[in-house]
Amino acid sequence: MSAEPVLIAGQWRPSENTGTFQAAAPATAESLEPLYPISSWADCEAALDSARDAFLEMRVMPGEKIATFLEAYAAKIEERAEALVDLAHLETALPKTPRLADAELPRTTGQLRQAAAAARSGSWRHPVIDTAAGIRSCYGPIGPVLVFGPNNFPFAFGSASGGDFAAAVAAGNPVIAKANSSHPGTTKLFAEAARLAAVETGMPAGIVQLIYRTSHPIGEQLVADERIGATGYTGSRKAGLALKRAADAAGKPIYLELSSVNPVVYLPHALEEKGDALAEEFTGSCLMGAGQFCTNPGLVLLIEGEASSRFLADVTQRFEGAAVGTLLSRSVEKALHESHRVLQKAGAEVLCGTGPGSGAGHSVANTLFHVSGEAFLRDPATLQTEAFGNTSLVVTASSLEQVAAILEELEGNLTGSIYSATTGADDDAYDLLAPILRQKTGRLLNDKMPTGVAVSPAMNHGGPYPATGHPGFTAVGIPAAMTRFAMLQSYDNVRPHRLPAILRDDYTGPAQRLLDGTWS
Amino acid sequence: MSAEPVLIAGQWRPSENTGTFQAAAPATAESLEPLYPISSWADCEAALDSARDAFLEMRVMPGEKIATFLEAYAAKIEERAEALVDLAHLETALPKTPRLADAELPRTTGQLRQAAAAARSGSWRHPVIDTAAGIRSCYGPIGPVLVFGPNNFPFAFGSASGGDFAAAVAAGNPVIAKANSSHPGTTKLFAEAARLAAVETGMPAGIVQLIYRTSHPIGEQLVADERIGATGYTGSRKAGLALKRAADAAGKPIYLELSSVNPVVYLPHALEEKGDALAEEFTGSCLMGAGQFCTNPGLVLLIEGEASSRFLADVTQRFEGAAVGTLLSRSVEKALHESHRVLQKAGAEVLCGTGPGSGAGHSVANTLFHVSGEAFLRDPATLQTEAFGNTSLVVTASSLEQVAAILEELEGNLTGSIYSATTGADDDAYDLLAPILRQKTGRLLNDKMPTGVAVSPAMNHGGPYPATGHPGFTAVGIPAAMTRFAMLQSYDNVRPHRLPAILRDDYTGPAQRLLDGTWS
Repeated sequence: MSAEPVLIAGQWRPSENTGTFQAAAPATAESLEPLYPISSWADCEAALDSARDAFLEMRVMPGEKIATFLEAYAAKIEERAEALVDLAHLETALPKTPRLADAELPRTTGQLRQAAAAARSGSWRHPVIDTAAGIRSCYGPIGPVLVFGPNNFPFAFGSASGGDFAAAVAAGNPVIAKANSSHPGTTKLFAEAARLAAVETGMPAGIVQLIYRTSHPIGEQLVADERIGATGYTGSRKAGLALKRAADAAGKPIYLELSSVNPVVYLPHALEEKGDALAEEFTGSCLMGAGQFCTNPGLVLLIEGEASSRFLADVTQRFEGAAVGTLLSRSVEKALHESHRVLQKAGAEVLCGTGPGSGAGHSVANTLFHVSGEAFLRDPATLQTEAFGNTSLVVTASSLEQVAAILEELEGNLTGSIYSATTGADDDAYDLLAPILRQKTGRLLNDKMPTGVAVSPAMNHGGPYPATGHPGFTAVGIPAAMTRFAMLQSYDNVRPHRLPAILRDDYTGPAQRLLDGTWS
Repeated sequence: MSAEPVLIAGQWRPSENTGTFQAAAPATAESLEPLYPISSWADCEAALDSARDAFLEMRVMPGEKIATFLEAYAAKIEERAEALVDLAHLETALPKTPRLADAELPRTTGQLRQAAAAARSGSWRHPVIDTAAGIRSCYGPIGPVLVFGPNNFPFAFGSASGGDFAAAVAAGNPVIAKANSSHPGTTKLFAEAARLAAVETGMPAGIVQLIYRTSHPIGEQLVADERIGATGYTGSRKAGLALKRAADAAGKPIYLELSSVNPVVYLPHALEEKGDALAEEFTGSCLMGAGQFCTNPGLVLLIEGEASSRFLADVTQRFEGAAVGTLLSRSVEKALHESHRVLQKAGAEVLCGTGPGSGAGHSVANTLFHVSGEAFLRDPATLQTEAFGNTSLVVTASSLEQVAAILEELEGNLTGSIYSATTGADDDAYDLLAPILRQKTGRLLNDKMPTGVAVSPAMNHGGPYPATGHPGFTAVGIPAAMTRFAMLQSYDNVRPHRLPAILRDDYTGPAQRLLDGTWS
């Protein structure tokens, strides 16, 4: 049986593959037809050449034209919504509704349309004009972008459809998508739609290309290739850091979204005020989607006391009673068990779970661990190991100062949340903890679970290493996410008619520009 | 004889050193008193702790207060101008006037004051407010910054006085300065002035610290230390890339300004129009300061023809007749001879120079190499080796297409210049070459030498690897240079009174904010 074709240089063509793989249905643990190719370097070489050719056109292409492509693509996704939802559900076991059909699909097309609007307006280019010095600058495209998508968002973070894809293309870069091996069919449907949109809107052949899998060495060769401008990666820390090493050594920007335990601090008076509601909210947030979110609340900090004890007992009971979700794959299940072993070995006590889940297919029981603040501080590195799934670790500290000490020991995280009483009774405690948490996280929340990641220009879905590779960039939010795939370009004494339109004196477009110190 | 003290935790104290070194006077090649210490890890450890303590205060310090410090420091530099100019002249042999006293010193205080203004206004923080989503974001300080300054700008790029220093402090970060070993005394004078300004304005002890030198392994340990936020480095490619490897492995941002040959293309009709004037301008730009600029025009591209031949002969004659400058150090002299050997071995013919210079102290004759476009394309990697000093390589291509092919082979550079006729006769050629050069350079120039680097908000003193480590950042220009030392901080549902002032609804300060999509 031959493997599915790859999309290279505008053609669906046989892969020069070194092997094949199959996806599996997480709900039944059964392998799925068809076979997908594991690409050799020959496939990559062809894709890199075509991406470079496409970039030669795209780097001087008006944003208007790129916007037209992104909008045509969004429309084609909507036309294929049912097929996409069906196949993604089969490949990931994520619920069709509301998750895939009503949340992730509109988010995906919304991102593409926001990116189109940014491409059209040029808002992402940050035009700066210094008329006295005769110097003008703006962002320009960086070059072909490789996108490695994660397993947990087959649409909104998909390598041929998600935020990285939208941001890279809107900034004027072709994309080589590396499908996540757990949902290759879904990614293929997206690439087919993108290809049709590209033909319709007259885009170069290499604007969107798709390969499904490579060996690790070939992946590392790809991110370091001279023809690549940058890489966007969302996934496991281990694989991400291997790619980072290769990209760093070649001087190629790589943007990683890796692990995060997303600490949540519940201050005592907040728990006294409405502990029940908070227990319910926490349980829902932590177990939703079987906890398979980058921003899942995986570490909870309490301070000893009656309200904390009650909260903990309440959450435990809710975890035991809640339905168990299906995990994305056998490897997610295996990794979750392994994280459990690591946490237990470091001293975490099991409040509930760790055993097999009662759900269909791959599942693990809803799991809650507990450890004292003192014990946490004995091995903070291990006890902040991410357990990707329906698991959280609750730490009960002996004092506010111990909570501060624990926060000081945390690695970089995507988010950090603090719940405090509406009366102001926790405000002193907040003022002690917030600056510490602020420095460790990309997004600081009050009285809110971190799991919702709004597509907002003010969003930071990023944070200090090792949550990401650089604390200055966000993976979500237009136009901020686009600057990852841009280079800063200054024009010094360049003749007026040779400037990009957005930097000319006679520019009348919609982009706001910093003109001699004032945005206008 | 004991070594000079280091500045750690607000005290000038004896170094726990592993050895000593002396600076030398380039004009006489004689060693200078006194001895400076080579710091052990114990010095670094103490400096890191103090920097962390200082950061705890600075990260919540109003920009107004930081501005006061920077302005007090600028004033103290002016009070000490004569001593700084005298000592820098002795340590670097750079001319007192106009270079040190009239150009570099005012540039340095000007940068500090621009940084102060940015700290005060918050303009660098890029505040973004999304009222509908309840999310707000801005840049915040990244943590203690290490600065490694270069040999060629003892003031304006000095580790305790220059652009990296100003940008890091203005963004709310303490600085650990690592002096350049060729001008330790000058750096000490700056650190003394900064220390006095810090005391006067009530800054934490660790806001500015100074060490002079470490072993390479200790330097690598420093950039990777957990207490460090980021590093700014300007200097040689080899040492910079070693630091990059260490910082990358630890996930610590490092901003490098490394080598660049700064290609200059002279199109034929431009040379016909005013070849004489261009030869004079080029010679002045290339030999000024003995060519020891990051943006020195080290690679010239011509197209075969009469005007090009005349230009080349003219430049050669001018190089031979021009005064020979003194180089910054014995090691610069040695490295320049070594670069010459590398270029010659790769096929570059000597038009003039390569021998000892007639200047005082360390010097090399003004050197001009030549190679055909065909020969360049046989070994483009070697023939774009930077020769840091009063040297340039001229390539004569057989055709415009060959120039394009050569540009395609270039590494990333800080700048790229194209000269074209005012009549428009070169415009087709420009249109072919400019997009290629644009992608390879941070700053594209027309009809202008790259050596002047204006401190402008539209400047990009940066460019693709290996000119720097990331093409999205600039080392010169306020506020853009400050974002290197910043992290993106998002606030989600954070209660209004807990937001940074710049993100509050009742903010009335001067910073322009992106409020629901509009700058205001």
